[in-house]
Amino acid sequence: MKNCIVAQSGGPTAAINASLSGVIKGVLASNNYDTIYGSINGILGVINNKFLNLSEMAQRTENFIDRLSITPAMYLGSCRYRLPEINEEAVYQDIFTRFEEMNIGAFFYIGGNDSMDTVDKLSQYAEKIGSDIKIAGVPKTIDNDLVETDHTPGYGSACKYLATTFREIAYDVSIYPVQSVTIVEVMGRDAGWLTAATALARNNTLAAPHLIYLPEVAFDTEKFVEDVKSLLPKHRNLVVAVSEGVRDKAGNYISASDTNQDIFGHSQLNGTGKKLELLISEKLGVKVRSIELNIMQRCSGHLISRTDIEESILLGQKAVELTETGESGFMTTINRNSNSPYCCEIGYTAVSNVANIAKPFPIEWITPAGNDVTEDVVDYVKPLIIGELCEKFNSGVIEYLPLTHLI
Amino acid sequence: MKNCIVAQSGGPTAAINASLSGVIKGVLASNNYDTIYGSINGILGVINNKFLNLSEMAQRTENFIDRLSITPAMYLGSCRYRLPEINEEAVYQDIFTRFEEMNIGAFFYIGGNDSMDTVDKLSQYAEKIGSDIKIAGVPKTIDNDLVETDHTPGYGSACKYLATTFREIAYDVSIYPVQSVTIVEVMGRDAGWLTAATALARNNTLAAPHLIYLPEVAFDTEKFVEDVKSLLPKHRNLVVAVSEGVRDKAGNYISASDTNQDIFGHSQLNGTGKKLELLISEKLGVKVRSIELNIMQRCSGHLISRTDIEESILLGQKAVELTETGESGFMTTINRNSNSPYCCEIGYTAVSNVANIAKPFPIEWITPAGNDVTEDVVDYVKPLIIGELCEKFNSGVIEYLPLTHLI
Repeated sequence: MKNCIVAQSGGPTAAINASLSGVIKGVLASNNYDTIYGSINGILGVINNKFLNLSEMAQRTENFIDRLSITPAMYLGSCRYRLPEINEEAVYQDIFTRFEEMNIGAFFYIGGNDSMDTVDKLSQYAEKIGSDIKIAGVPKTIDNDLVETDHTPGYGSACKYLATTFREIAYDVSIYPVQSVTIVEVMGRDAGWLTAATALARNNTLAAPHLIYLPEVAFDTEKFVEDVKSLLPKHRNLVVAVSEGVRDKAGNYISASDTNQDIFGHSQLNGTGKKLELLISEKLGVKVRSIELNIMQRCSGHLISRTDIEESILLGQKAVELTETGESGFMTTINRNSNSPYCCEIGYTAVSNVANIAKPFPIEWITPAGNDVTEDVVDYVKPLIIGELCEKFNSGVIEYLPLTHLI
Repeated sequence: MKNCIVAQSGGPTAAINASLSGVIKGVLASNNYDTIYGSINGILGVINNKFLNLSEMAQRTENFIDRLSITPAMYLGSCRYRLPEINEEAVYQDIFTRFEEMNIGAFFYIGGNDSMDTVDKLSQYAEKIGSDIKIAGVPKTIDNDLVETDHTPGYGSACKYLATTFREIAYDVSIYPVQSVTIVEVMGRDAGWLTAATALARNNTLAAPHLIYLPEVAFDTEKFVEDVKSLLPKHRNLVVAVSEGVRDKAGNYISASDTNQDIFGHSQLNGTGKKLELLISEKLGVKVRSIELNIMQRCSGHLISRTDIEESILLGQKAVELTETGESGFMTTINRNSNSPYCCEIGYTAVSNVANIAKPFPIEWITPAGNDVTEDVVDYVKPLIIGELCEKFNSGVIEYLPLTHLI
């Protein structure tokens, strides 16, 4: 029997380890595979020969799979390494030599856009050399910007965090009888999926966030000041959701610093909220505060969505099953059949359909004024945040699987 | 039978409405009091004649008391109004005239240091004019800086948020195989109680936060850089907890801006973490990020401590009972009898012992190097964060009592 390798890549989420659990579950239940190894720090672990024996860990650690499913961040560690084109053979030879040495039948990569590029290239190379090693992608990203899947694991949990936190912020800022503006900066460099989901904080007595700005609409600072000014008489304590990635008409980020770039050419943003805070203070002279939700919106494992975790597990299991039937070069997907009752099926697509493509937020889900979203967003996101998992506390503090193997 | 008024003041916390529940419970159970009114925006509601009939609301709103107990922020709204000295009689005459008109037997004020100043002055004035209206204080503050009580309501829930969030941040930053420093700024202008509690994030496999800086120790930026530099070889992904209120030897805040002051003369701080981020980046050239936990650390009702909520309710109930036995001019207190098993009694003290005095963090709980806390902190805080309350979600989002009456 063949063995398997699984790895993770990209940014951390609260649900990516649930997909890892799914892959491990799938392999342990399989009659076709023997041991499953975890590659440490994505594909780099394969290159550098750094593995965990996950079959063994699942056997000797109590409730390993269940505890792993609700541990945030990334159990196997990540990398930002991008494979060269497949005609630069050296690194591919290293990887496939390792696969042969370890008697690997399938390689599973859990990640977002950039990780699917790795899956695509590895499966192309396998085909080129006539290898029958199956290469499979399992989606994850809080950004929800993968095409061919209704939504991505990690997105629902991040939205649950945003809905709850925006509601709590709206409560906090409403206690003084003075006008105030609170600008909350949300992740999502290129697409407004996360920022749009802040609309879920609203209910029939709470209108916050009162304004929502996505990167899909050119951001006009003068119009922004006007928007705030016109709403203040109606809502004493305004709460504004703004994407870190909002840009002006010329395409320049509003944030204070947009000079740093990571190796994929993504600009490292910060300070959009701070910049708008200073603007409102200067132009309107009203009490104003900015809040950056920072990495808490992606790593808050204490506020995960049960739906998100369950789907993430299924996506991992499905990937294993598909390789057993001979499939390779695919990514597993979620296909929604209906909103109410919420009903989804797990499917798959060729990874070449997904790699390096970002799913845009639907422009028709943005109001004509460009400062709010329509009810479609709520209908779309609401099912993804349903369900809680509260049994993870020990002596008052949340308990996760240790990550000591990463250091 | 006489009626009662209850009001809240100061900054919001996740537990202050539990104390309000306790007062309402106490009055509803009393044979001495009739209706309980909530004064909107602290003592200002009395002056401006703005009240809610809480007895009526408790009767006609389903589960009012239970839902109120777990709603964060401040149900009755707050104020930052400071009463003049009692020889400036006009405002006192207004207040006591209102009390007489409404047939008030007792006034309950839930708040921190500054609010206890109001309780103290009102009770002095009552004595001066021979009024038998009882004036009672119920403590609250996430800062835990009230004297004569072992700890304050709101502190335990904030500590539970900090312990969980620091653990999750430590997980998030550990996934890349590159050195990094993460500086997390924690509330607590003058005392290190909150920042010290971040030590609860640690367990036998997690050393974060690796450095903890409190305002009680003069902050030396050169020593800080040395501390970080010396730990980086041992811990690849350093997490640093720093109080917003750290100051240099001359007493100047490290934060970027310390020019704004509120009406109590407190400096409005921000940017301590940001400033230290820039410093580390410049001096060590390592990957560095700063995180400001902002108001989430005080308003995260989804992460409240059951112990904190239960004690807050008892403090409110006790205040009502004490007024029934003729006491006035007091604040209810928590007296700890033992750590393990954790055992507390609810008591009280003259409010003049408490008003305008800040409880210092024990210097002997800071390590000699001034960059960490001792195990005493963990022993002290641990019992305060025990217990969860997870039954508050509806369709995936946390549900609280509406605050529409504040707007």
